[in-house]
Amino acid sequence: MHVPTDGLPDRITVYEVGARDGLQNEKTVVPVEVKAEFLDRLADAGLATLEATSFVHPKWVPQLADAADLLERLDRRDGIDYPVLVPNERGLDRALDAGVRHIAIFASATETFARKNLNRTLDEQFTMFAPVVKRARGEGLRVRAYVSMAFGDPWEGAVPPAQVAAVGKRLVEMGCWQLSLGDTVGTGTPGHAEAVIDACVAAGIGTDALAVHFHDTYGQALANTLAALRCGVTTVDASAGGLGGCPYAASATGNLATEDLVWMLDGLGIAHGADLEALVATSAWMAGKLGRPSPSRVVRALNG
Amino acid sequence: MHVPTDGLPDRITVYEVGARDGLQNEKTVVPVEVKAEFLDRLADAGLATLEATSFVHPKWVPQLADAADLLERLDRRDGIDYPVLVPNERGLDRALDAGVRHIAIFASATETFARKNLNRTLDEQFTMFAPVVKRARGEGLRVRAYVSMAFGDPWEGAVPPAQVAAVGKRLVEMGCWQLSLGDTVGTGTPGHAEAVIDACVAAGIGTDALAVHFHDTYGQALANTLAALRCGVTTVDASAGGLGGCPYAASATGNLATEDLVWMLDGLGIAHGADLEALVATSAWMAGKLGRPSPSRVVRALNG
Repeated sequence: MHVPTDGLPDRITVYEVGARDGLQNEKTVVPVEVKAEFLDRLADAGLATLEATSFVHPKWVPQLADAADLLERLDRRDGIDYPVLVPNERGLDRALDAGVRHIAIFASATETFARKNLNRTLDEQFTMFAPVVKRARGEGLRVRAYVSMAFGDPWEGAVPPAQVAAVGKRLVEMGCWQLSLGDTVGTGTPGHAEAVIDACVAAGIGTDALAVHFHDTYGQALANTLAALRCGVTTVDASAGGLGGCPYAASATGNLATEDLVWMLDGLGIAHGADLEALVATSAWMAGKLGRPSPSRVVRALNG
Repeated sequence: MHVPTDGLPDRITVYEVGARDGLQNEKTVVPVEVKAEFLDRLADAGLATLEATSFVHPKWVPQLADAADLLERLDRRDGIDYPVLVPNERGLDRALDAGVRHIAIFASATETFARKNLNRTLDEQFTMFAPVVKRARGEGLRVRAYVSMAFGDPWEGAVPPAQVAAVGKRLVEMGCWQLSLGDTVGTGTPGHAEAVIDACVAAGIGTDALAVHFHDTYGQALANTLAALRCGVTTVDASAGGLGGCPYAASATGNLATEDLVWMLDGLGIAHGADLEALVATSAWMAGKLGRPSPSRVVRALNG
């Protein structure tokens, strides 16, 4: 069957966030050896970018308190990228000690969330991140920047795309190689996705420096991803089995499920490198460890 | 905020199928007065096309055995269209007795499903439908035709778009005013949606005569709808609260939820006439009657 692919990329990078963003809000404590096996299975399933954990203080994210232990246990393979979230210079020290080659920082597109999540003003966050990015770059590390609340904000409502682009621009100028535009509360829609990406491009940020990170709280994640692909974005964040939620949204639905994304990509003939069957088996196994069904529709359909 | 709307329609018709397609597979028997209230509440919520019930034999769909009673109780309002599914001439008699002005027939795009669901060959189904459509037209009724298994078929796999278009063409030539292209098993993806619509247009069927009917079994329904809107389709089937399932799919997930569709349309600035808050309240009420949470992400997020 011939499938129209006007404006769509031939290949994309799936940036798998299940082990970090997916697990960080889980109440059930996942043993470190299960996390290591999860990452191994995701690598076996063909995913080549696996955000592994976070060096945020255990007081804030107890689930990821085992970050150093996990990285030590993990058989980090050639050709697989294992980025790690780093909140500050202390986190960077720990990441460097663990031999991490790729970090991510977590910035805010809004004033209110910068204050609530970082205890900084929107402007002060750059002062906080600058030395982290500079030192990481000096050590030869790649730095991704999450731009959270890039669509809606629970306190401020819809966020102006130009504001998102201005925040993104400063992060790129600081030395970040990729921005992940995060719809943290999941309220965004496909035209909104286009507007945010257009604003970034208008600010001089190339689509090759953009990733999208959609939450499915309002069921929009895959439609938004399709819109982003049509805009030329070729890196998509997703979480195996749809793991993860947003503590600021009433619903338990979370990240775009990697399997649902892969199903769409396969239908569109867009290469991604992942093996759907192995992914589904991995997510079903992890759902068992967490004691609840996967929110991924594909996992449920194929494993029902 | 300016939202890009290249190629999207200004307004669409939501064809609400919750009371028929949504309820028909529900195990919990819904009392006729609850169905009447459901339809009244959907009308109050601004939906103007409400498929009300089916005159299929009660042996096949016991849930809708009360079709005549429901239509008698229902306060059918001016300006609201209440189409009713009709399987054959006997069903048409009952629909005419009930004063129905708009019927729908349920055709198959594949040989296997025609045999299993209609006990006819693909070709014989037209012989079965022809007198129904002819007489309905003679009585001044509008006839919609569902083209089921228009994407994937559980027995035949992917269905060639040209085959779907050929079936659709014969139904249009028979006098059907609208085709509803049904992804009955939910395996379709956005490029596939474009291919099927393109094939219909190539066969001489205008997009004004097309509707799309997506199931969310693999999480693709909203992305597919977006692709269909970009192709010029302006009628979208949806089910309040995501009611309904497919008996041939392992998963319980069913129709595209009207609320998730409306959320996207609102974001895109596409008019539809529905009041989201009233819809969510109606679906939450119906979920209570059915004793299980709504699968709609929007209903869960706003009613969690």
